[in-house]
Amino acid sequence: ADVKKIAVLGGDGIGPEVVGEALKVLKKTEELFGYQFETEHGLFGGIAIDEKGTPLPQETLEICQKADAVLLGAVGGPKWDNNSKELRPETGLLGIRKALGLFSNIRPANVFDCLKEASTLKPEVLEGTDLIVVRELTGGIYFGEKFRRETANGEEAVDTCAYNVQEVERIVRQAFEIAQTRRKKLASVDKANVLETSRLWREVVNRIAPEYPDVELEHVLVDNCAMQLLRRPSSFDVIVTENMFGDILSDEAAMLTGSIGMLSSASLGEGSFGLYEPVHGSAPDIAGQGISNPIATILSVALMFRLTFGYHEAAQRIEDAVKSVLDAGHRTGDIAVDKSKAIGTSAMGDLIVAAM
Amino acid sequence: ADVKKIAVLGGDGIGPEVVGEALKVLKKTEELFGYQFETEHGLFGGIAIDEKGTPLPQETLEICQKADAVLLGAVGGPKWDNNSKELRPETGLLGIRKALGLFSNIRPANVFDCLKEASTLKPEVLEGTDLIVVRELTGGIYFGEKFRRETANGEEAVDTCAYNVQEVERIVRQAFEIAQTRRKKLASVDKANVLETSRLWREVVNRIAPEYPDVELEHVLVDNCAMQLLRRPSSFDVIVTENMFGDILSDEAAMLTGSIGMLSSASLGEGSFGLYEPVHGSAPDIAGQGISNPIATILSVALMFRLTFGYHEAAQRIEDAVKSVLDAGHRTGDIAVDKSKAIGTSAMGDLIVAAM
Ligand SMILES: CC(C)[C@H](C(=O)O)[C@@H](O)C(=O)O
Ligand SMILES: CC(C)[C@H](C(=O)O)[C@@H](O)C(=O)O
Repeated sequence: ADVKKIAVLGGDGIGPEVVGEALKVLKKTEELFGYQFETEHGLFGGIAIDEKGTPLPQETLEICQKADAVLLGAVGGPKWDNNSKELRPETGLLGIRKALGLFSNIRPANVFDCLKEASTLKPEVLEGTDLIVVRELTGGIYFGEKFRRETANGEEAVDTCAYNVQEVERIVRQAFEIAQTRRKKLASVDKANVLETSRLWREVVNRIAPEYPDVELEHVLVDNCAMQLLRRPSSFDVIVTENMFGDILSDEAAMLTGSIGMLSSASLGEGSFGLYEPVHGSAPDIAGQGISNPIATILSVALMFRLTFGYHEAAQRIEDAVKSVLDAGHRTGDIAVDKSKAIGTSAMGDLIVAAM
Repeated sequence: ADVKKIAVLGGDGIGPEVVGEALKVLKKTEELFGYQFETEHGLFGGIAIDEKGTPLPQETLEICQKADAVLLGAVGGPKWDNNSKELRPETGLLGIRKALGLFSNIRPANVFDCLKEASTLKPEVLEGTDLIVVRELTGGIYFGEKFRRETANGEEAVDTCAYNVQEVERIVRQAFEIAQTRRKKLASVDKANVLETSRLWREVVNRIAPEYPDVELEHVLVDNCAMQLLRRPSSFDVIVTENMFGDILSDEAAMLTGSIGMLSSASLGEGSFGLYEPVHGSAPDIAGQGISNPIATILSVALMFRLTFGYHEAAQRIEDAVKSVLDAGHRTGDIAVDKSKAIGTSAMGDLIVAAM
């Protein structure tokens, strides 16, 4: 039988509890569709710092490398915030992206009908918003040389932002291909009026664009994009951009949907391997209370099914189950209008499993 | 008599026409308050490229250097978009900032009552929004070394982002001081979990914060700030950040107010000298039709009066006049609900002068 191996990294805060619900859903698909999954758990993030002295232990990395996909909860929390760089959860996140060659971060930002009112944007502006930010994930200023040096004006810190043609080309091609499966519009975001890396980026985009004649391309400056996301969110289909800009814009896009507790993301490399995680963080303030919203993580499983395993029917089943539970009015505290009627993490997971 | 010298750079697109209206207002304050201004015009931006072969001619720079303040319209347009770097209007903008030592960009983002409905945010979210982004303007990745080199993966482009202690300290002190004159809240925005320059930035902020015990300080990561601006815009008072982040966040903040046609900005250096300009661009699509909105540029004069000349009474007079004209229902096309009732650029200028 075709056994799929999934590395499971619960991480910190609400990470383990939301991942727990996602695993219930995974199990249910074994029953319903005859799939077989082998899950192996690894320590990652703050908990790995506490137990192993490093946010990304070698054995965790090996579990991921042997797997077909990784399901990640969330990492971080105030406990580790003042640690030195090597002992911070984020360092594990950057390390795992690089070590697994996950150069592409796919972040869909769409609006759940029943959560429209949760957005701070006017409903008529939000109407029809359904975009994907494709963010370069292993290059740019995140991974360039960093150092300090003495100057006449006191200590100086330096970060280096670098991109080569191959790094730009692979992510831009992926974005064009995603656009081809959607509304066929691509916005390439850069700061070509200031940055050399952006000028290279734009050259590469313009060079390969003719190979995707069915996709309508626009170049948008990053500052303008931050504005246009607010002014006309529904006009965007696929946005492709470099690492730092993608970090900022994907969070802006996620927030404007009002559905941040519901959004999942994928980090992909060359093959079908991928790491899947909710967009939201580890929410240490509500961890362990059983009140967190597992939907983004459950939808991350659906995304994994689509992008890594090609299990489209099961993915659809999960997405439909989430929709029907929401349509029936069930809400966790973060998305409930009437907080007194909110249900807990595992009740939400169970309802979704039942609806499948 | 105390004659103030103002360098006037109309620039491109609607720049000259909106500056023309601001000059009417300036003149009116001479009458009303007995001030004396000496204005000298300089070529800048695209028009300077066309007439002098460079976006920032030496004589324009000298006019600015001899002046007490600079009033700038806007630069840029499709005509120069594909020029090489040295022949682009933006290069003039970066050049003038550096040459005049304008290390601080002050961008107020507040909501005009009568334009609340123009925002894409819900009115109840926007209510009370009144923030200032203090952006570092002559350092960081904008001005660091840039180059290309060959690698095994094709050509590589490199940008360098550097900040030294002195550069961070002077902008952060200015932000603390501005916060002291307002609601006494400062959000310092960085990406300290990834960037070395951000770690230096945060160290400097933390070191000098005790000197401003009356100001409540929070550190906000840039991605989170992009979200929080959407979620709770009214909770921000002063935001201070480095050049690239400030470019993005100040545009996001301006757009969310819905009042972008009304916002002015100041770029300051060590002394009282400053460059004042509207936040909006050169709008080449409507240039020369006499329909642009001069209010942001007129309010830039008020900002100049406050920050460079200490002419607070006259500044207030200008601001009140703008408010009364708007309250009376007069609108240019960009802010009119009923476009058929919109008035032109110079009619708006005249009404504001009359209201003074
Ligand atoms: C935690 C941090 C290093 C990370 C990033 O900036 O990439 C996070 O913000 C994200 O978007 O996944
Ligand atoms: C035109 C461009 C170089 C400039 C910048 O990025 O600083 C503009 O966006 C601004 O904010 O004044």
